[in-house]
Amino acid sequence: GSNGLLVRSADTNFVMNIHGYAQVDGRFYLNDRETANDTFLLRRVRPIIEGTVYDKFDYRLMLDVATGNVTGSSAANNALIDDAYVNARFFNQFQVQVGKYKSPVGLERLKSTADLVFVETGFATQLTPNYDTGVMIHNALFNTPVNYAIGIFNGAGDAGSDDLDVSDEGKDVVGRLFLQPFLNRDVDSLRGLGFGVAGSIGHHNGPLATYKTAGQQTFFSYSTTTTANGSQYRLDPQLFYYWGPFGILSEYVLSSQEVRSTAAGTPPNARFNNTAWQVEASYLLTGEQNTFKTINPLHPFGPVNGGWGAFELALRVQQLSLDKDAFPKYVTSTSAKEATAWGVGANWYLNRNVKLNLDYEATSFRGGSKVKNAVTAHEEHVILSRVQFSF
Amino acid sequence: GSNGLLVRSADTNFVMNIHGYAQVDGRFYLNDRETANDTFLLRRVRPIIEGTVYDKFDYRLMLDVATGNVTGSSAANNALIDDAYVNARFFNQFQVQVGKYKSPVGLERLKSTADLVFVETGFATQLTPNYDTGVMIHNALFNTPVNYAIGIFNGAGDAGSDDLDVSDEGKDVVGRLFLQPFLNRDVDSLRGLGFGVAGSIGHHNGPLATYKTAGQQTFFSYSTTTTANGSQYRLDPQLFYYWGPFGILSEYVLSSQEVRSTAAGTPPNARFNNTAWQVEASYLLTGEQNTFKTINPLHPFGPVNGGWGAFELALRVQQLSLDKDAFPKYVTSTSAKEATAWGVGANWYLNRNVKLNLDYEATSFRGGSKVKNAVTAHEEHVILSRVQFSF
Amino acid sequence: GSNGLLVRSADTNFVMNIHGYAQVDGRFYLNDRETANDTFLLRRVRPIIEGTVYDKFDYRLMLDVATGNVTGSSAANNALIDDAYVNARFFNQFQVQVGKYKSPVGLERLKSTADLVFVETGFATQLTPNYDTGVMIHNALFNTPVNYAIGIFNGAGDAGSDDLDVSDEGKDVVGRLFLQPFLNRDVDSLRGLGFGVAGSIGHHNGPLATYKTAGQQTFFSYSTTTTANGSQYRLDPQLFYYWGPFGILSEYVLSSQEVRSTAAGTPPNARFNNTAWQVEASYLLTGEQNTFKTINPLHPFGPVNGGWGAFELALRVQQLSLDKDAFPKYVTSTSAKEATAWGVGANWYLNRNVKLNLDYEATSFRGGSKVKNAVTAHEEHVILSRVQFSF
Repeated sequence: GSNGLLVRSADTNFVMNIHGYAQVDGRFYLNDRETANDTFLLRRVRPIIEGTVYDKFDYRLMLDVATGNVTGSSAANNALIDDAYVNARFFNQFQVQVGKYKSPVGLERLKSTADLVFVETGFATQLTPNYDTGVMIHNALFNTPVNYAIGIFNGAGDAGSDDLDVSDEGKDVVGRLFLQPFLNRDVDSLRGLGFGVAGSIGHHNGPLATYKTAGQQTFFSYSTTTTANGSQYRLDPQLFYYWGPFGILSEYVLSSQEVRSTAAGTPPNARFNNTAWQVEASYLLTGEQNTFKTINPLHPFGPVNGGWGAFELALRVQQLSLDKDAFPKYVTSTSAKEATAWGVGANWYLNRNVKLNLDYEATSFRGGSKVKNAVTAHEEHVILSRVQFSF
Repeated sequence: GSNGLLVRSADTNFVMNIHGYAQVDGRFYLNDRETANDTFLLRRVRPIIEGTVYDKFDYRLMLDVATGNVTGSSAANNALIDDAYVNARFFNQFQVQVGKYKSPVGLERLKSTADLVFVETGFATQLTPNYDTGVMIHNALFNTPVNYAIGIFNGAGDAGSDDLDVSDEGKDVVGRLFLQPFLNRDVDSLRGLGFGVAGSIGHHNGPLATYKTAGQQTFFSYSTTTTANGSQYRLDPQLFYYWGPFGILSEYVLSSQEVRSTAAGTPPNARFNNTAWQVEASYLLTGEQNTFKTINPLHPFGPVNGGWGAFELALRVQQLSLDKDAFPKYVTSTSAKEATAWGVGANWYLNRNVKLNLDYEATSFRGGSKVKNAVTAHEEHVILSRVQFSF
Repeated sequence: GSNGLLVRSADTNFVMNIHGYAQVDGRFYLNDRETANDTFLLRRVRPIIEGTVYDKFDYRLMLDVATGNVTGSSAANNALIDDAYVNARFFNQFQVQVGKYKSPVGLERLKSTADLVFVETGFATQLTPNYDTGVMIHNALFNTPVNYAIGIFNGAGDAGSDDLDVSDEGKDVVGRLFLQPFLNRDVDSLRGLGFGVAGSIGHHNGPLATYKTAGQQTFFSYSTTTTANGSQYRLDPQLFYYWGPFGILSEYVLSSQEVRSTAAGTPPNARFNNTAWQVEASYLLTGEQNTFKTINPLHPFGPVNGGWGAFELALRVQQLSLDKDAFPKYVTSTSAKEATAWGVGANWYLNRNVKLNLDYEATSFRGGSKVKNAVTAHEEHVILSRVQFSF
């Protein structure tokens, strides 16, 4: 079926589902002063095996074998495995999940990347950890009016993933509280409202994250003499609201990290607070119900049956601001102090398995190098397109 | 069954097939002056998931997890994924394929590597691109009397594969026209005749390909001061002919590339035209129908039922000629100007899933280093053996 | 079911089983002078496809996509594939296996890593090869009273794996004879007794192995000027004994290698004999039958049905002794001459698919650096925990 191969034992205590998805992107920069090349690329190619054993243990294994996703990874196969976890569901209000999976901080981060409204995630998501390894107690993340999660993880850096903590002993405590007060109520206009706050606190040493535009060009890096060294915390108030064909998702993230510099003439210890926010709205022209999860077209595309699939328009505004005190001594000379971006997108869901994205995003910078061909020397104007198929 | 696990929805609109194949090779060089080591190796290990969603969308995902196939790859996981594409088949004469797959240039290249007559592909195939990422319009490559394909790809180098274009903005336009005029006619002796021409034109910067013997020893490399820089084109007239147990496959390839040299005393810009041809004939002793596709033994091997499988003998002659003007300034001092090879092979198809290959190939060189232990100092005599199992 | 997805053709000539397992570990060092970090990690994540084609050909493909397993690998994807083999079973007493699989030397090595009693394998196992590529004739390794195996392999180093022999032409001849004289007899107390001897002999050049503690910290390395250069052999007498809930497994390994040193003032050629032994005992508190293979709890855990799974206690003592003549000229200054360890473990098998391990291991060293923070400066005390789920 449209959900891949699904097999169930007669008593339904054992379930296995083999499926997956692939994203083939085209990236085209509208001015040729860009340092990045126009390219086709495999952005994500993710075979998935998931299921249940002995009725109460859910597991999930998801690989990513695409090159386009290799960012922020130093360990050999680190980028290869995204999910590898088991969730013991003896008590719905007290589930225990162990392994590697998305650290429950960012809201857009917790969306399946197969369900993203825009081709690339936003600035706020860049300040949140990605797939991390650890133990979490929770009652599922979106299923009930009051969703909680608290866990201990290796502690991945901003937008980073982590199989193995090679750089420090410090672990992250991660917590999230998310409310959907009208989830089971008879108020159509409010049922799709969810809001909450998440955060992490821990201790990190080692390399620091870089930050990127929608076109995946790096506009901010710490200098090589600056490393993470000390406590880190994140705070992430977040909100979504879906009503009929309309949807909005917004979050703000503060990521604060103690660093150490070995450069001469630079105070060795400092703490920098980087912040980002994003607001993303979308509207389904063809009357489907908008949702945080997967959008299912009412009339799959087919010249014979006359269906056209679902069409969606989207708009996003976002900003990432680096700590002013980091400039100029702790950062590379090509780093911008702030990036502000807006984008528009048009999505065509041909059916449950095939989806096309077309985005235009414009990013402007404050600070950074103005040298010809520097990323920050001019606005970035990029067309991002995607063909996504799931199986 | 012999084609792996195949599941179909009741209405056949959804199909999933999980299968794959592995090749375990033995390479033995007949004189010990070779620089390469005799070795067992995993040449290809390829799990495959393919199928159809919503009746009209075919997809295919094929990984290669064997070390023996890691050639010409610089990007991290680039060698890991071969196929990742979706093909929209609303109109048979106008299919649209998007993703990563074999660039439709070389004829032998378009054969499944599970169906190769010889253990290693020929010289002409080395001048064609391998798996590339892009968009193609086509009416399938071998199914009709007139097969066309035209596409735009990142543009992989000779024998190269490509997930992501990191070295240049230039894209390749690739085209192929292949005729099988008697495919649906009542002329047995001509039904298996196919011929055509394919080519690519584009713009490339960056590293250039090296060329290898059947024994996978490099006999030609450009010097490190020479890089691709400018337009490239390929021309590939090609032909096969199958009649009963007999088969022949032949092609000629011209690969022409503008290069730039940064070496002192060398003209900075040049264009080099490298050419190769190969002729490969095979004969099935056990009466099976020879074909470009998979050979199916009439009587699977089994001591009980008395079957012996299928036996095939094969012969190949081939030559790769580098542009004379590249010597000596643009190439390494150990590079040969020309390699000429002949080989004989015996294949045993035990059943549809298990196949043994045994080849002997001899390669002689014009030019190149004559220093003791240099690859080009003497003829290469190599035994290549393979156990292939598919599932 | 609990063995993943198993499909069979109607005539049972074709079988395919898709399954796998993942191990999520926590490693915690009890004193903070350790150089290694406390960490969660994915130790092994192994999707498996195995089955039978044409009734007589068994195949198996097993990947390992976890970072935690990347040890001793230099080739790109070398660590990614563990098993890739086909076994022709026309005659049970004369089976032919080709591809990559565990070299039949070490006894604990031949245990599935999903069935390990302790989280990490023992010292003796470190002196045996891991997954190697070659051809083997055998009558299965544990199924009959007299089990033999003899094969030729590329020749992996101690604890090493091998897809492709890049460092030398030398191949290893590997042999094993293992007796279970009471396997089919009516003597309960002796039926689970097995003993035998295995060995390898070959020729190796290139990098030499390092040796590690249970906590995976390296306590012995040859210096970079010392490489393998010449003949190598291993001898491995081995034994297991299972009676009711009780089990013991013991082996001794001698690994002898000719080396070459390029250091000034050091004799260039030498042979070093490294030895190790381990004894491991386990007892199932909940009455299950102990076995070399998978332990199946009588009463799967579940608060509703009142089952608690199976509990096991385990004890291990082990020692690895390096050749005295290697000190100090052929080794790094931080290398210990001997490591002695003891460990206790408690395992909880919740059901056939979920298992928890908790080990404490203490390792003391003779020789090695006594500099603060050196691995060998003090005893290692480590807690190793694991959540394992199979599917």
